Amino acid sequence: MTKIQHIGIFTSGGDAPGMNAALFAVVKTAETLGIKVSGIRRGFEGLIDDDLIPLQSQQLQKQMHLGGTILKTARSERFKSKLGQEKSVQTIKDNKLDALIAIGGDGTFRGMLSLSSISNIPFIGIPGTIDNDIAGTDYTLGFDSAVNTAIKCIDNIRDTAESHNRVFLVEVMGRDSGYISIYSGLSCGADSILIPESAQDFTYLLEKIKNYSSEDAFIVVVAEGDEVSVEEVSSKIRSVNTDIDLRIAKLGHIQRGGNPSAQDRMLGIRLGVLATKALFQGESNKMAGVRNNRPTLSAFESRVKEHIIDAELQALLTLFCK
Amino acid sequence: MTKIQHIGIFTSGGDAPGMNAALFAVVKTAETLGIKVSGIRRGFEGLIDDDLIPLQSQQLQKQMHLGGTILKTARSERFKSKLGQEKSVQTIKDNKLDALIAIGGDGTFRGMLSLSSISNIPFIGIPGTIDNDIAGTDYTLGFDSAVNTAIKCIDNIRDTAESHNRVFLVEVMGRDSGYISIYSGLSCGADSILIPESAQDFTYLLEKIKNYSSEDAFIVVVAEGDEVSVEEVSSKIRSVNTDIDLRIAKLGHIQRGGNPSAQDRMLGIRLGVLATKALFQGESNKMAGVRNNRPTLSAFESRVKEHIIDAELQALLTLFCK
Amino acid sequence: MTKIQHIGIFTSGGDAPGMNAALFAVVKTAETLGIKVSGIRRGFEGLIDDDLIPLQSQQLQKQMHLGGTILKTARSERFKSKLGQEKSVQTIKDNKLDALIAIGGDGTFRGMLSLSSISNIPFIGIPGTIDNDIAGTDYTLGFDSAVNTAIKCIDNIRDTAESHNRVFLVEVMGRDSGYISIYSGLSCGADSILIPESAQDFTYLLEKIKNYSSEDAFIVVVAEGDEVSVEEVSSKIRSVNTDIDLRIAKLGHIQRGGNPSAQDRMLGIRLGVLATKALFQGESNKMAGVRNNRPTLSAFESRVKEHIIDAELQALLTLFCK
Amino acid sequence: MTKIQHIGIFTSGGDAPGMNAALFAVVKTAETLGIKVSGIRRGFEGLIDDDLIPLQSQQLQKQMHLGGTILKTARSERFKSKLGQEKSVQTIKDNKLDALIAIGGDGTFRGMLSLSSISNIPFIGIPGTIDNDIAGTDYTLGFDSAVNTAIKCIDNIRDTAESHNRVFLVEVMGRDSGYISIYSGLSCGADSILIPESAQDFTYLLEKIKNYSSEDAFIVVVAEGDEVSVEEVSSKIRSVNTDIDLRIAKLGHIQRGGNPSAQDRMLGIRLGVLATKALFQGESNKMAGVRNNRPTLSAFESRVKEHIIDAELQALLTLFCK
Repeated sequence: MTKIQHIGIFTSGGDAPGMNAALFAVVKTAETLGIKVSGIRRGFEGLIDDDLIPLQSQQLQKQMHLGGTILKTARSERFKSKLGQEKSVQTIKDNKLDALIAIGGDGTFRGMLSLSSISNIPFIGIPGTIDNDIAGTDYTLGFDSAVNTAIKCIDNIRDTAESHNRVFLVEVMGRDSGYISIYSGLSCGADSILIPESAQDFTYLLEKIKNYSSEDAFIVVVAEGDEVSVEEVSSKIRSVNTDIDLRIAKLGHIQRGGNPSAQDRMLGIRLGVLATKALFQGESNKMAGVRNNRPTLSAFESRVKEHIIDAELQALLTLFCK
Repeated sequence: MTKIQHIGIFTSGGDAPGMNAALFAVVKTAETLGIKVSGIRRGFEGLIDDDLIPLQSQQLQKQMHLGGTILKTARSERFKSKLGQEKSVQTIKDNKLDALIAIGGDGTFRGMLSLSSISNIPFIGIPGTIDNDIAGTDYTLGFDSAVNTAIKCIDNIRDTAESHNRVFLVEVMGRDSGYISIYSGLSCGADSILIPESAQDFTYLLEKIKNYSSEDAFIVVVAEGDEVSVEEVSSKIRSVNTDIDLRIAKLGHIQRGGNPSAQDRMLGIRLGVLATKALFQGESNKMAGVRNNRPTLSAFESRVKEHIIDAELQALLTLFCK
Repeated sequence: MTKIQHIGIFTSGGDAPGMNAALFAVVKTAETLGIKVSGIRRGFEGLIDDDLIPLQSQQLQKQMHLGGTILKTARSERFKSKLGQEKSVQTIKDNKLDALIAIGGDGTFRGMLSLSSISNIPFIGIPGTIDNDIAGTDYTLGFDSAVNTAIKCIDNIRDTAESHNRVFLVEVMGRDSGYISIYSGLSCGADSILIPESAQDFTYLLEKIKNYSSEDAFIVVVAEGDEVSVEEVSSKIRSVNTDIDLRIAKLGHIQRGGNPSAQDRMLGIRLGVLATKALFQGESNKMAGVRNNRPTLSAFESRVKEHIIDAELQALLTLFCK
Repeated sequence: MTKIQHIGIFTSGGDAPGMNAALFAVVKTAETLGIKVSGIRRGFEGLIDDDLIPLQSQQLQKQMHLGGTILKTARSERFKSKLGQEKSVQTIKDNKLDALIAIGGDGTFRGMLSLSSISNIPFIGIPGTIDNDIAGTDYTLGFDSAVNTAIKCIDNIRDTAESHNRVFLVEVMGRDSGYISIYSGLSCGADSILIPESAQDFTYLLEKIKNYSSEDAFIVVVAEGDEVSVEEVSSKIRSVNTDIDLRIAKLGHIQRGGNPSAQDRMLGIRLGVLATKALFQGESNKMAGVRNNRPTLSAFESRVKEHIIDAELQALLTLFCK
């Protein structure tokens, strides 16, 4: 085991609030351990292009509360090629990087495992995505901020829904995961929540809305996803209740930005410290997470399994929206 | 001139932040003048259906800071019929209403002028719409709140745009008026602003973006409107710059809700006081507005003319986005 | 064991964001179990005065996202007397209450244990206080909202601190607990955090600030508390560095209000459901909490012990502010 | 009249939200006119110390939405001396500055007039202070943001006040001006507003609160100021109503920071453009303001007169809080 003297860190995939807090924590921790940290810009793109900058905690301390990522991020097609990965290995050698920390989601971790197969550089992954679709951690970095942004939007929409006695379909982010929709829907007193993980809710919603008589607001939170689009939900609803005054609101990218919530800043700090200490102690190829509210390293294998909505959440969903 | 002893008030058309502040101000002012106020629920619908509730300032004082309208609002098809208007006149007689205050937009005022032709009840209109598309006032009630909501959203989007060096097309509300787009676009340092009032900007944008090379964020604010959809803008941009990483964000209904901004609360108060005092002093068929930052009554005729983007704003638009 | 048919619920002590979400969840859960719920107004005061109102989930659904408590709250001197407690028992009998749910802090739970010694009515406590000073739960209801409010304030203060290269002492709430100060201080990149639980930080701060040369912002977060006032901290600092441009900001009561954060709404829902199901299943004299991120009932005895800052948090504090 | 080729700009006195938007507008406008702009750091201190940086609009475009001032600000004792002013003149010569733009308040403008008496460099002042205590403009830069921050705080406090039926004295900023207190007090439905401009309100408040019987919230907004402290108000109130449950909340410095509101960003843009064009057109020693909602240059003499609360505002104050 090499003594870690120089860590490279990058953010990759979609940006998520809290990434800058994690960067700050990594650099601050590294400094106390006598380790130098370089920031690799634009994810794997910067690794391929040797685009590195030195990081100091003094500057990051002033930026840790900002949304987005000061290292910039990207999705990299080039890294999927052999050439891209070889260039990355060269960058690692040229800069004498002893270890890597990657902040991102599924795709980021797959990329790292791939790189790891041709280089034996130790690395730790930090789950940074607003979707909360990574196993091995209670929450991913950015999820709490995205939900807080979503609930403020839905609270706004409630004002209009109640002023007009109107039905609103609110589409929230989450790709193939229903976490944002469940958390924001429950938190806003939604009448119905549709998630990718279960399609039967839909039948229930139609039953419920068939008898809706425009004397109150009615709010449905829908997770964006491949199976059922919010437009389809809309036309199904109109087919069972033709008089309905219904509007669609897609929250979209605004959920992704903004200064991180307190929980995400704390999570970024906790995971940044955990990842850096883990590397220092000789750990490798693990994901830093918080499980049952405790800092925990997981093997990456465990991460691949699907993120199932847990039993408590499933029960809440049934209780409040059925 | 009848002595005003009982005023009926309603909100109509789209809800706008600040309506509750205006209600509070009307009732508070009326109380000091010994005038009773009844709230008519759901706009013209409540006028037709005799759906009135008494209003007291003590309760409204606790609700004046909330978004939406506690009287609820609606668009009324029935009011367009002779029967609907006759029933409205009957409601006015049955409840011994001496005057009406209507908070809403264009359609609301047209409805009032129509009612006025078959009843001689005095009324004052308060311009309440987020679109700022009413002549006779510097700003309409709800506009400042909508712009503040929009800029927070665009600030959020900037985080992602800068993290990814991405182009964002942000669609804001405004129907046929470019006010929300100009104010929010200028306030967020947008690279381009497209408004319904002028189509030539579009050519300029295409020229500018043709040479954009993905090294920075690029934010375009587009007013929703009939002429050019945000999807069309997107495909035009892609046709001149095929490599571009471009996303669309439609802010939609979230711009309409939320607690009103300070300016909108103050505007609601100023207009509510002005309207009530005007009725008390024998004014009729006028709109209460704030012109050149002074409370001003306008004849309704003046309101019909188009809301032209003023010269100063036009110059700013040219300076910052051309 | 009596079948539970009628639950009384009240909020007591300081108000905390999330209380209304918990009320909603209790009533919604009770409705599905065929249980009636009455709200007792103004905490123990309403129990003494027989001030009860029926609660329905339909109305609460629209209010669950609001700060404060719709049942109002109070600190009750009268409940400390024998007469007050006897009257409370009478109210329980007169209204045929089979069980109680009390949302509050330490004092509230002590009151319930006292009542329990003269009445055998089953009860469950829900920890509702922004201070996070209750054992048996990872977080108390209101804590996350208070921290989020605090960090927005401190972010604001950072703008001024950096514009002027100024030292700011920011006093946050927390009585005898340092949780709000640690969470908000770490989340805002504070240079120093002073907590009631340990006094030695203070020495360290003085050492650090002695050499501070006004070329940057310097932010100290101080927990309000008996031992060291923010004014004392200020004069100590001035005694070691006489040139310093230092300001005090006390966040005070604004930390207590505002719409609850997503985490607090979810926590209110989780605890409300847990408490109601527990009573239904025959549990009694327990506190509903979330431990290691799982819903957990604790005996009240365990709650009495001091809330120690946990080891992970202590390590973070040492790492970032020493 | 010299052709303007190089403008120096600085921010001075207390920081105010919108200053960065004004900087952006000045630089953007200057660029279109072929004028170079240098930023002078830390107000007059940087002028004395020759601490200048070049400014480009491309970078400022990303920072214009941020609170504080990227040029930093300061109050300068040294500038009051002859030596300080001579060094400033030297800096102007050394850097070949043809004109200055100063963003600040009273003190800043006095400093500029003083400098102007020993140097004939043309300058324009932009009123940047949250206090709105500058004549010659409807609003000063930062005022609208400060009021919006204040009303969010007071809305929060209302939650607690209503939950406890409590009296709150809320102290807002404003030095010797009552604008922040009037705007935030009216906007939040305050029961009483105390301003430095008139002391008689106080008598009225005592009359009103004498009969207050703790069945509702009661909110008093007090402007910080020399004459009557919030503590004095508190003890006067307690002397006429001894049972009262009263709390004090001082909003303090959080009113000064945070991202500027839409109005302040627009005001910054409008004043920045106006000031730059004015210098280009040969104007000098004027203040750029917005009067009756129109961009207006004023002679500095006019600025010296006291800022009187205008008649409309005075009438609102009497109507709502008396």
